[in-house]
Amino acid sequence: MTEKLNVVPFVSVDHMMKLVLAVGVERFLTEMSAYIEEDFLRWEQFDKTPRIASHSHDGVIELMPTSDGHLYGFKYVNGHPKNTRDGRQTVTAFGVLADVGNGYPMLLTEMTILTALRTAATSAVAAKYLAPKGADTMAIIGNGAQSEFQAVAFKALLGVNKLRLYDIDASASQKCKANLAGMGFDIVIADNAQDAVEGAQIITTVTADKQLATILTDNMVGTGVHINAVGGDCPGKTELHKDILLRSDIFVEFPPQTRIEGEIQQLAADHPVIELWQVMAGKAQGRNSSAQVTLFDSVGFAIEDFSALRYVRDKLIDTGLFEELDLLADPDEPRDLFGMLLRAAKASAV
Amino acid sequence: MTEKLNVVPFVSVDHMMKLVLAVGVERFLTEMSAYIEEDFLRWEQFDKTPRIASHSHDGVIELMPTSDGHLYGFKYVNGHPKNTRDGRQTVTAFGVLADVGNGYPMLLTEMTILTALRTAATSAVAAKYLAPKGADTMAIIGNGAQSEFQAVAFKALLGVNKLRLYDIDASASQKCKANLAGMGFDIVIADNAQDAVEGAQIITTVTADKQLATILTDNMVGTGVHINAVGGDCPGKTELHKDILLRSDIFVEFPPQTRIEGEIQQLAADHPVIELWQVMAGKAQGRNSSAQVTLFDSVGFAIEDFSALRYVRDKLIDTGLFEELDLLADPDEPRDLFGMLLRAAKASAV
Repeated sequence: MTEKLNVVPFVSVDHMMKLVLAVGVERFLTEMSAYIEEDFLRWEQFDKTPRIASHSHDGVIELMPTSDGHLYGFKYVNGHPKNTRDGRQTVTAFGVLADVGNGYPMLLTEMTILTALRTAATSAVAAKYLAPKGADTMAIIGNGAQSEFQAVAFKALLGVNKLRLYDIDASASQKCKANLAGMGFDIVIADNAQDAVEGAQIITTVTADKQLATILTDNMVGTGVHINAVGGDCPGKTELHKDILLRSDIFVEFPPQTRIEGEIQQLAADHPVIELWQVMAGKAQGRNSSAQVTLFDSVGFAIEDFSALRYVRDKLIDTGLFEELDLLADPDEPRDLFGMLLRAAKASAV
Repeated sequence: MTEKLNVVPFVSVDHMMKLVLAVGVERFLTEMSAYIEEDFLRWEQFDKTPRIASHSHDGVIELMPTSDGHLYGFKYVNGHPKNTRDGRQTVTAFGVLADVGNGYPMLLTEMTILTALRTAATSAVAAKYLAPKGADTMAIIGNGAQSEFQAVAFKALLGVNKLRLYDIDASASQKCKANLAGMGFDIVIADNAQDAVEGAQIITTVTADKQLATILTDNMVGTGVHINAVGGDCPGKTELHKDILLRSDIFVEFPPQTRIEGEIQQLAADHPVIELWQVMAGKAQGRNSSAQVTLFDSVGFAIEDFSALRYVRDKLIDTGLFEELDLLADPDEPRDLFGMLLRAAKASAV
């Protein structure tokens, strides 16, 4: 990488797509999952804070910072459900990785695509610890932008190769099926959510509704199932009936954030939950019986973005898939910022 | 500006210097000051929060967000006093302006230079309301990276044209004097701080020490003076003797932040302070006698960065001094992020 002090490597959307394709989507998800696991295993080293949200009538803009004492990362992400009307993404994101020692940014990258990948990777990592052994069938309820990433991550990490898709908009399921063609999945499009969950050991809910919705009711969830609840991720947005939560063991990323944003916003503030990192570190039990219903109440936490940023940064060196951004003022003499301006005037006058 | 949804205008360091030079430093400061005043006058419309800081052994990385309900801005800024050893800036910064309605970033810009300008502009705006009428002489104690910007801002907004410089490092004063040559200043380099303040109606302190320091003692401050205290701006970093504070009327940006970071960290948590915006809006009195010592305890607040971002954004349309950054994923169909990836693969295979 460069030694020019003014320059920050920048990964555009185009470069991110090329990077993902050069590595291969499945391998990208598998390798990034290893970074996520590594960071979850040293959870206690991180500065952790719920995201800093700026709410407005139409949506929210959030900053999600974290640091392990050596690196600092943050993500800017918005959530605007009505955006699709104008052909915009509901969620877009970008992020920065910086050196804690000198405060200089080391990477600026698009994170819309990267967030989709890290969300799916985190779900699959959680399922490695929570889903029933040998699970090969997953229902995906909600077949929007996140659905294919979930499918590929679960295939890459757990070997899931049978999908049962359902969306209130049948064209979304068709799009999902078409996108996953030729990737080794056996795909059924179901007529309703009840039909979708039949025979599935894993149920992924990933709808985009902002209202309190009930995508899954209690009678639809059989014993032994792992629920990967991805779509409920902000205040007022849930997908599961409360009765499901009451008979599940609930695993979360960062409880102070999940209690505000996750499915468990429906429960009492002291309802017991298990931190995923503790299961990974062997400090808490994950799945303990074949009858247990496990629920990963995913909302997305800053440490996952940090892992994703670390992974991308490491991949840049080999691939060269970045631009150099002239982001940092770098006067020859640090105390002479004004002089740098004067010299620029002289240089342009010549 | 562009209508391509994936593109965010980016102002590099090089473009920022060209923009400042194209507009002219004095005019840039004057025009940006008007944006700052405009935003201070509608202070109550803003979401306000103290900056979000991540402290480490060597420094701090901060995020400074704010929003007026229509636009959202944030700045990333570090502070690492030891950085100059490696030829790095102590403070570097970049920032983003976004549309609250759809959450999309509208501008990404370097803010190292821009922060230097907005800090000086804010000081000069405060002095317009607080300095004695007709003040034409300013002492500047601390002649580092911020000193020339302060000088030019006070000349542009108040007509200050006599400078008395002092720095513990005489070469810094020489650098400051040389940089300001030909700009219409009468400049004296003083042997010590006591000498520097003689005859000055305005005293600007802008040293870079991180420790609790006493740049000014009580006997050095005569009646009627306006003190522009810029250098004390984080916990443990102050420049003025407490006795000066006790006989000054103290004006601040955002009290919850200034009580942590400013000179007033030396005082009781309930020591009376006056919010600058209230003076500007006619809700509180500024200077009320020729004997009064006024103190602007400047720490830098997110709304000033917001004003600076707004100003730069408005200037881009005329000047074209920006690049287009491919920062936002923009699939033809918002729900089809994965399909965009697949189409990129096909496009690159052709």
